[in-house]
Amino acid sequence: MKQVSLARRAARLSPNMPASGHGPTIPFDSGHGFPALFPDLTAAAERALTIYRDETLQYGSRPGLLELREWIAATMSGDGADVAPDEIMVTNGAKQGIELLCRLLLDEGDSIVVTAPTYFTSIPIFRSFDVDFVEVEQDAEGLDTARLETTLRRLKQEGRKPPKFVYNVPDFHNPTGITMSRRRREALLELASRHGMYIVEDSPYRKVRFEGNSEPSLKALDRTKNVFHLGTFSKLMAPGLRIGWIAGQRELLARMMQLKADGGTSPLVQRIIVEWCKAGNLPAHTENVQRTYRLHRDRMVAALRRNLPEASVVVPQGGYYVWVTLPRNIDADELAKLAAEAGVTVLAGSKFYAVQGPGALHSAGPPKNQMRLAYSHSSPEEIDEGIRRLAGALRRCGVSPAGAPIERPVAHSHPTTA
Amino acid sequence: MKQVSLARRAARLSPNMPASGHGPTIPFDSGHGFPALFPDLTAAAERALTIYRDETLQYGSRPGLLELREWIAATMSGDGADVAPDEIMVTNGAKQGIELLCRLLLDEGDSIVVTAPTYFTSIPIFRSFDVDFVEVEQDAEGLDTARLETTLRRLKQEGRKPPKFVYNVPDFHNPTGITMSRRRREALLELASRHGMYIVEDSPYRKVRFEGNSEPSLKALDRTKNVFHLGTFSKLMAPGLRIGWIAGQRELLARMMQLKADGGTSPLVQRIIVEWCKAGNLPAHTENVQRTYRLHRDRMVAALRRNLPEASVVVPQGGYYVWVTLPRNIDADELAKLAAEAGVTVLAGSKFYAVQGPGALHSAGPPKNQMRLAYSHSSPEEIDEGIRRLAGALRRCGVSPAGAPIERPVAHSHPTTA
Repeated sequence: MKQVSLARRAARLSPNMPASGHGPTIPFDSGHGFPALFPDLTAAAERALTIYRDETLQYGSRPGLLELREWIAATMSGDGADVAPDEIMVTNGAKQGIELLCRLLLDEGDSIVVTAPTYFTSIPIFRSFDVDFVEVEQDAEGLDTARLETTLRRLKQEGRKPPKFVYNVPDFHNPTGITMSRRRREALLELASRHGMYIVEDSPYRKVRFEGNSEPSLKALDRTKNVFHLGTFSKLMAPGLRIGWIAGQRELLARMMQLKADGGTSPLVQRIIVEWCKAGNLPAHTENVQRTYRLHRDRMVAALRRNLPEASVVVPQGGYYVWVTLPRNIDADELAKLAAEAGVTVLAGSKFYAVQGPGALHSAGPPKNQMRLAYSHSSPEEIDEGIRRLAGALRRCGVSPAGAPIERPVAHSHPTTA
Repeated sequence: MKQVSLARRAARLSPNMPASGHGPTIPFDSGHGFPALFPDLTAAAERALTIYRDETLQYGSRPGLLELREWIAATMSGDGADVAPDEIMVTNGAKQGIELLCRLLLDEGDSIVVTAPTYFTSIPIFRSFDVDFVEVEQDAEGLDTARLETTLRRLKQEGRKPPKFVYNVPDFHNPTGITMSRRRREALLELASRHGMYIVEDSPYRKVRFEGNSEPSLKALDRTKNVFHLGTFSKLMAPGLRIGWIAGQRELLARMMQLKADGGTSPLVQRIIVEWCKAGNLPAHTENVQRTYRLHRDRMVAALRRNLPEASVVVPQGGYYVWVTLPRNIDADELAKLAAEAGVTVLAGSKFYAVQGPGALHSAGPPKNQMRLAYSHSSPEEIDEGIRRLAGALRRCGVSPAGAPIERPVAHSHPTTA
């Protein structure tokens, strides 16, 4: 009867829903954007395809449209990172930036530093370069530089070369939502400089801040030009644009441009973005994005507290995700399967660990009781409904008999170090 | 005085020209499209950004928009190659297709077969995979399969593994403009099957045919599913779209999709193409493209015969380029420099040879007296002016004193085998 009741409730949300079952699946598993937030790009596209037609339909330049790079440089400089247009290269989304950096920097036998957990889409890209992972924990201040220092010292004592770069998402980390403190940022830069490592700062969510003050970006604090900053228009404007960028050293960008053998990133889409931004749309849009996703976050956190009181939730100050630690006896991979059957998709935390077996930071393998929930894509009503479905799945999950209390998680300062 | 006279003549072509010198450079070096041929995509973009906004601004699927793949499959099937939508993967231009195929197929120590000369942009992509090149000549029927067979037999006798794939542009070859005959296509497929090689059929110009009948594509003749067909919207519609595709075996495409870690090709641009094609624009547009580039080709060939009678010209039945063989005492690299000074850019033929030093098909290295001229980008008036400038540069090139006749090339059946 529960299923029918859920379906009925869900039926009020969408008229296109099947008459039986749970209705359309609610996706908490993806970092998709909320459709109602997508900007109106029709005027910008009209200009791009008329006034700028000879530019937008022709081959573009390898580094990317100059006006777009100027706009990015000005925006980054306004954010404290003094970057010139020729220190920027436009890419097909930030993911292409990750891949190009790997192609530029990685040699056989190289290792890189990643947080445990880390952005799960980056893991197969790194793996495709046969890289070794050096995992490092986070706490409430982000990447634990003291532990990283210990690891780097040990590697040195063992006569092993230092990792080639540190990959991190310092603002509203994916998946944990944690923002790195300023002192940790400075410590990381000092470590990178001392050990001859590059830093790859992946920063898609930086402007999606709901509250609190920004810390300076790693790029802004960089004195040694060893930081590559990855930006994107996906999370603030729309993922379908597939436009990102790398800011870094001129000489290294020049080499990456040779590796970027795709005929250039679409000048049409670049021009649409430039025209839309130059028309002054971004500030009000950014405020709307921040306000809307803040509501989504609050709705999801409240629904979790109401429906999954046994879960420990990291409440982020921005970004797209909440990171949830479940009671120890819950296997999030099993929960994800049951949840999908109940009409809500989630990503088990185990997917976010680069090292799965022996050699993992956690000797027993990644924790099994974590999951990432994206509040970005779904409407507030869908968030409520999705969390209800998830709670229903949790009740059917693992060892908990109906009605019996589920074991509470052990208290700890931060779920990611559990 | 000649320079001033050229500048005056050029000044009639464009109002934005400097008052002195030769006026804006005329680019015969690039396969850019003729701007006046670019389609009007405003209505398609309007639909894409309104009706399809939730699709076009969201993340797209890895294989590409289903409707676009259905359209491509129907078009290819209509052209004799029976391909299903799930045998197609959309890419960021055909160049990304080349790179993904390299990542999928090439292992350490592998070799590939390329024509000498071959598409020059593909060379650095192949080189970045540390591949060895097996060069093969062309004649008027295209890739010389008899010579390739001899080479493959020799490799086998030497105990070396066969090349992993044959890369070729069988229709209006880049740079030579040659179209492969049907019997050569069948011989190549037979050779590939016998020696366990894949074929990469790069086919950007297939629909840009001015006269004569199409030969079946290699994909259409393929019985073994060993052909990867690379297509693109760059040469028929507009390069700035950056949309191409790979047609090939499902299982291998599935593996390439894992390698294509760029967050998907822009669903916005894919939808613009689908809407424009579904509105029935393509047939008339294709005719216009064919008619216009035929005029460009004729204009360039006539201008070459008038101004550079000493040059031997391959007149292609389609595509974007003429391949020119100069008198033997002319170094086309030197000519290219002088031409650039005179306000016209050309690509020396040497750039189109994968092997430059020892091991090249031509023991003395690539021929020095060839060049590729693109007639695609320039207007008929610019073509006339560009060829005049080129002829002026040729007069100043190498050993020819003013007024003395330049040595004529030795007659040969085909310039590419000279």
